[in-house]
This record gives sequence, C-alpha cells and structure tokens, in this order.
Amino acid sequence: MSASFDDWMKSVQAHVEEALGAFLPQPGEVPHKLHEAMRYTTLGGGKRVRPLLVFAAGDLTGADTATLERAASAVEMIHVYSLVHDDMPCMDDDVLRRGKPTVHVKYDEATALLVGDALQAQAFTVLSEGDAVPAARQLAMVRVLARASGSAGMCGGQAIDLDSVGISLNLEQLERMHQLKTGALLRASVVLGALAGKDLTAQEMAALDAYSVAIGLAFQVVDDVLDATADSATLGKTAGKDAAANKPTYVSILGLEQSRALAEKLRNDAHKAIEPFGDKARRLREIADLIVQRKA
Amino acid sequence: MSASFDDWMKSVQAHVEEALGAFLPQPGEVPHKLHEAMRYTTLGGGKRVRPLLVFAAGDLTGADTATLERAASAVEMIHVYSLVHDDMPCMDDDVLRRGKPTVHVKYDEATALLVGDALQAQAFTVLSEGDAVPAARQLAMVRVLARASGSAGMCGGQAIDLDSVGISLNLEQLERMHQLKTGALLRASVVLGALAGKDLTAQEMAALDAYSVAIGLAFQVVDDVLDATADSATLGKTAGKDAAANKPTYVSILGLEQSRALAEKLRNDAHKAIEPFGDKARRLREIADLIVQRKA
Repeated sequence: MSASFDDWMKSVQAHVEEALGAFLPQPGEVPHKLHEAMRYTTLGGGKRVRPLLVFAAGDLTGADTATLERAASAVEMIHVYSLVHDDMPCMDDDVLRRGKPTVHVKYDEATALLVGDALQAQAFTVLSEGDAVPAARQLAMVRVLARASGSAGMCGGQAIDLDSVGISLNLEQLERMHQLKTGALLRASVVLGALAGKDLTAQEMAALDAYSVAIGLAFQVVDDVLDATADSATLGKTAGKDAAANKPTYVSILGLEQSRALAEKLRNDAHKAIEPFGDKARRLREIADLIVQRKA
Repeated sequence: MSASFDDWMKSVQAHVEEALGAFLPQPGEVPHKLHEAMRYTTLGGGKRVRPLLVFAAGDLTGADTATLERAASAVEMIHVYSLVHDDMPCMDDDVLRRGKPTVHVKYDEATALLVGDALQAQAFTVLSEGDAVPAARQLAMVRVLARASGSAGMCGGQAIDLDSVGISLNLEQLERMHQLKTGALLRASVVLGALAGKDLTAQEMAALDAYSVAIGLAFQVVDDVLDATADSATLGKTAGKDAAANKPTYVSILGLEQSRALAEKLRNDAHKAIEPFGDKARRLREIADLIVQRKA
C-alpha cells in the first residue's frame, strides 16, 4: 500500500483495460462491425473514474480481485453506453469523445444505438457470470447496478436534463438532476467495490453514501468549471457546450469562484465521511482529491 | 388445467398486464415524461408471446407464480425496448406499433432512446429483486436474459439485419440472423419459465432448445408471410415494409407456398421436441399452434 496514488491509478487503469478487453466480445466474432464498434468506444481511453472507485472501495472490505474486475468492467460498460447514446444527434449531437470521433460519426447512428444497447446487456452478462463470491452477493451487485442505471438513476437524470434545457433550475433542482445523472453510477461504483468483499452494515453503507454524494456533486461542479474554462483539446470533448445550449450549470448559477469553493467544501465532506474506515480508505480519499483537482 | 387455450392465454395476458403495471415505474414519479412514455409503450397491447412462453414453460417445473411474473415482465420489457429502438428514424423509421404512434412520434427521439435504455435496466432490476427462489437460480435467470439480449443474441441479430439490407442472403444466413434477432429472446423466455421452478437437466435443456429453435423460426417465417399478405390495420404495424426495404425474407427466398409449408414443418418439430414432458407441455404445444396459425 505504499505505492503513490499516481502509480496505483495507472496500475488499476491498465488492469481494467485488460479486463474490459477480455470481457467485451472479441472483434473476430460475428457481427464484426458491432463488436469492433463496441471495442472502439470502450477501449483505449477515459479516466476510468468508476473503475478506480470500485477498486478503491474494494480496499475497505478486502475484496477479491476477480470480482472487482467484473464490477469495474460492468460499471464502465454502463458509463460508456450512456456516452455513446448521449452523443447521438437526437441527444447532445456531439462529434468528439475522449479525443476520437463519436460512434455515430465513425460508424453510423444505427450502429451507435446498437452499441449502447449491447454494452448495457454485456454489463449485466459480465456481472452475472463468474463464481468468486456467493450468489446472493453477486445478485445484490446486479441489483445495485440495474437500479443505478435505470429511470430512478442515470436514465432518469438524463430525462430531467433533457427537460430542463432553456429552463432556469435552482441549485436544489440542479443537484437532484446530477445526483441521478452522474451521482447514481458513481455511488453504485463505490457500493459494488465494497460489496465485492462482504455485505455492508447499515452504518458502513451510510458512510459510503455520504462520501458518494459528495464526490458525485464535486465531480459535476468541476465538470461545469472545466466546461467554462478549458479548451476542447484539453478536455477531449467539445468545451463550452452547456453554456451554448443554455443548460443550467453550477457556474451559471453560482459563478466561477463560488463553484470552486463548493468543490473544495465537497472534497472535505467526502474525506470526513470515510474517516471511520481509517487507512483502508486512503485511495477513496485520494480519488476525491483527483476529482476536484483534475484539469480535464 | 382444463381451461381452453384461449381462456388460459387471456388470463396470462391479464396477469402479465397487471404485473407490468406494478413493476414499471409509476407515472407520478419523477421524471414524469420518461415514466409516462415507458408505460405508454409497454402497457395495453401486444400478444405477449414471450410472457406466454414463460408461463407455459413454468408448467413443466411447477414454477412459483411470483417468479414467473418477474421473468415474464423482464423479458417483455426487453422485447418492448427493442421495438422502441427499432422503430426510431435511424433504424426502421416506423410510425405505427401495436396500432398506436411509436414513442419517437408520440414524444420525441431523445425520449424514445431513453425509454429503451431505461426499460432494459428495469428488466434487470425486476429480475434481480424478490426472493421467492434461491439466489443462485435467480442469478442464472439474470445471466440467461443478459446473454440473450446482447451482441451474442438480440442486438447481434439486429446488427446482422442492418448489415444485410440490399444483400442477398441464403436460407442458412437468414436463419442465423433470425435465430439471434428473435430466436434468442424466445428461447430465453422458455428457459426462464422452466428455471423459475427448478434447475434443468442437460436433457431437459436440449429438449427445450429444440422446441425454442423451431418456434423461433416458425415465428419469423409466419411474420414474413403476414408482412407479404396482410394489411397494416390487421397487423397494427406497417405491412409490406420488408419487401419495400429490399430486406431478405423467407417469402422472397422460398416463395409463399413453401414458406407456409416450412412453418407447418417447424410446428411439428416443436411438438415432437417436447413430447417427453407429456401433458405438462400442453400450453407450449398450443403456443406453437398459435404462432403458426396467427393472423397478425
């Protein structure tokens, strides 16, 4: 556990890249184009924040590595599918993602639709296979990911986001939207990582929830700050889009300085929430720092 | 068990309608439009062939009703999501489904995309909740549905279908496409129903597979015959689309008469496959009849 955060992060990212490569359908299998497109959009990029959370939370409960690999890959597949669908012309109509052409640009819209659909199914396939943990725990993990992905989680947040273009949200409404849109899957990542080791007590679950809520909101506040201040080349996606689309953001409601101060406050909240776990929560603490200090 | 097939079918359909209504997010829950659209497209229509297969297969193993409700609802949600995405402008661009405007017509494309995504997640939520059967069996059911839905199943079949527009497929290639596109989910329905009662022996599984392959192909052959011979009002969807889109069909390869003969042969294959189950397979036999004799 003496590795620097940077070394740890790189090793988890490499580990997850390898796991994703193995858990995705192989490019030589029919249908070739669909499988090639699933691999194109999933592999070789991204900060892998959700897999990092899975592995970091696994430290809390001494989780088994094979199960962490499955959980991290599954949650990343859900995240990637949401990006593919989000980038489609009927949603955000974006051409650039992780510095590469989006799936509907590189292939076509129908393929982008199917890539997203198939990645979601693959996530639940990966999470329901293997036998390293008892079936009841594995089933609980499926349930956590399914709930976080659906209309009471990520998809619900997307729907609220769509409905709020051009509408002025207050801070509470903006928070609620992000808690579903991004927060639900980040929280699921933390819970999945811990569950890979053992069942959680109500107290542990509450601590992880407080941590997850704080980093989830921090993540979005920093996203809004970066969208307003960084350029597209640095971000690997189109900058300034939210403002251009007249979408409410933390920056548009609070301004730049207060948004930065809020991100700092949320980082402290996150640190505080996981204090009871002591040194086992080191990587979770460092991920909160990463989320607030990132430049892209 | 002395109810006529028609009475049995209507009672299962009503039962599943009620279960779906309970398992779908309620319309009063935020986000309202998404939930309303999920209910609009799922409730109040459809032959419910997959739920019928789930309940009929449940007879083979004396399956528990609560688990059959979950399995039937989950597989129907996957089917409905695939129709919603399939009808979108970037796929089949269809305006009519089950006699009603399609989701992207009634709402908008972004909502149709999210409705499909959220229905898929809801299917896995429903299947991973409840505790009427042992967790290991429930997990196996999740695995069956996830594999049947993804790139090695339904989505893979869709991709092959897309790639074959304007290309002349031979009979074997056409069969392979349909075995994935429609067959995988029909097969999953049968397996889920039986699994809701008990684990299956290899021999039982092989018999159910042979039945499923036969009715899956029969279903598609009859679909092609109806597409070529019935009108849109009877079908509740646009007739003659496949021929117009220059898609290969059984009718275009075999002609109408040979297609009808093939459907009859497949019905006999299906009956034969499940003979070993005796009278417990009565409903499965009758469903094979329904699939071949239906007029819409």
